[in-house]
Amino acid sequence: MSDSQQPEQGLNGMDLIVDGWFHERGVLWPGQAMSLKVEEVLYHGRSLFQDVLVFRSSDHGTVLVLDGVIQVTERDEFSYQEMIAHLPLMAHPNPEKVLVIGGGDGGVLREIAKHKGVKEMTICEIDGDVIKYSKQYLPGLAVGYEDPRVTVRVMDGMEFMLANQDSYDVIVTDSSDPIGPAGVLFEAPFYQKMYDSLRDGGIVCTQGECMWLHLDLIRPLVAKISEFYQSVEYAYTTIPTYPSGQIGFILATKNRGSVRKPARVDRELEKDLRYYNAELHEAAFVLPSFARRAIFEDK
Amino acid sequence: MSDSQQPEQGLNGMDLIVDGWFHERGVLWPGQAMSLKVEEVLYHGRSLFQDVLVFRSSDHGTVLVLDGVIQVTERDEFSYQEMIAHLPLMAHPNPEKVLVIGGGDGGVLREIAKHKGVKEMTICEIDGDVIKYSKQYLPGLAVGYEDPRVTVRVMDGMEFMLANQDSYDVIVTDSSDPIGPAGVLFEAPFYQKMYDSLRDGGIVCTQGECMWLHLDLIRPLVAKISEFYQSVEYAYTTIPTYPSGQIGFILATKNRGSVRKPARVDRELEKDLRYYNAELHEAAFVLPSFARRAIFEDK
Repeated sequence: MSDSQQPEQGLNGMDLIVDGWFHERGVLWPGQAMSLKVEEVLYHGRSLFQDVLVFRSSDHGTVLVLDGVIQVTERDEFSYQEMIAHLPLMAHPNPEKVLVIGGGDGGVLREIAKHKGVKEMTICEIDGDVIKYSKQYLPGLAVGYEDPRVTVRVMDGMEFMLANQDSYDVIVTDSSDPIGPAGVLFEAPFYQKMYDSLRDGGIVCTQGECMWLHLDLIRPLVAKISEFYQSVEYAYTTIPTYPSGQIGFILATKNRGSVRKPARVDRELEKDLRYYNAELHEAAFVLPSFARRAIFEDK
Repeated sequence: MSDSQQPEQGLNGMDLIVDGWFHERGVLWPGQAMSLKVEEVLYHGRSLFQDVLVFRSSDHGTVLVLDGVIQVTERDEFSYQEMIAHLPLMAHPNPEKVLVIGGGDGGVLREIAKHKGVKEMTICEIDGDVIKYSKQYLPGLAVGYEDPRVTVRVMDGMEFMLANQDSYDVIVTDSSDPIGPAGVLFEAPFYQKMYDSLRDGGIVCTQGECMWLHLDLIRPLVAKISEFYQSVEYAYTTIPTYPSGQIGFILATKNRGSVRKPARVDRELEKDLRYYNAELHEAAFVLPSFARRAIFEDK
């Protein structure tokens, strides 16, 4: 197992399973690795875009791995899916049209579907294999596809947005890390395309990497997109099986102010949730001083 | 390396280093493991109480391991030390006498020393070797011992408290996990001893394990001690090198109400901190729904 190089074309997820444990090592988190105990490999293959591995773990349920990086474990996925979906949706007073870019496992759709006021959900996932194998092995997430309001487009999100301007109240980008197919999703031109596809008052929420690992990536991106979004803020959620145990979200608005307080509180909906609640919405934006300074204050 | 048994008398930290990586596997976090890349082992030996390992890592600075469990890495220790110290100290309007149980590395003392109003800090650490090797290899933490207000007692905390009733404004218990020498620190009798050693209006803050792993341990302990403390609350901090990336704190008060809001805000002191700030004080008590329900609501 190599541990200090870029995942190459030839990365093989099976090589990361040694002595019955899957070891997640990557250039984005040098010198540290999360390991999960493997009970059984359920699927391994190469899609048009990436290495796809699905295994059943001893204690974390079924696990989806793309290019050697853990995307989902059944045990803790709810913290990510709930927060990336409900933070922007609850910050919007009346979201009707929602676009999901990436998110092929269906978990984000599952959460958006809990909002009765939403009329249309379109998902734009570039890798059809992620959808296919999630439906086969992660039914608890792929249940999101069963909602009649969902339209699935297997295509590039940038291309889709070019053809759909001023269309969405909320855009959620649920991407993998900025190495490989998702690299372009961490650059300002992608945020410009999302801006153009938002309706007035719209909100984007994107996977924003980890404040403990990637401040050098987050800071310039936030600075750059603050030039055209009206507000840009950073929240985070805890999730044990992502590197360093947390992941952040960039929330940016088109002609709308801060999203730090929810625009709506729905205690009925919260009964169906395991992570998000209105108080946690506000708390998720309160950053440790080192992260707040690095992202928003230091020059 | 065994991965599903109790650390025994014979646990040898060196056995956990394989192919240049330290692997932290334990019965308290089955099926998952954090690994850190080792550059050089600085010390390994057995104290009267536990296996002590100190190594220099590739990306996380010097690392202290007790009985196979990571206690401190220089890279992220500040999030733990700051929160376990400043949450109770800032919740108290005028803390003068502070007791630390455990915390032999000195990091908690370092944080308490930042409070000018504190007149006495006593540390009661059972394992003198932890103090000795922290002074040798973790000077950035052991600097806490240099403050003239510090008194060091190498002895059992329970015994010390028996002889010091109604004495302290704040007691901080910075312990290892409830297997091995620290087991007794997670039981109600220990919390009763702390209660007796608090002055009126006093606050205890203890290492409270992880909401993602140990709700079955936290819930009954919180219920039990709520019978004699006036308020009992749970906060958490993010810390990448602890299991699942977070650790919690139990804060309990003797004849004082909620500690969720700081009693004091000190922006000058905050300039010296990298994690704690007054806004984060409040946010740290806002739990994800699954944890809030499990600890405080479900019967």
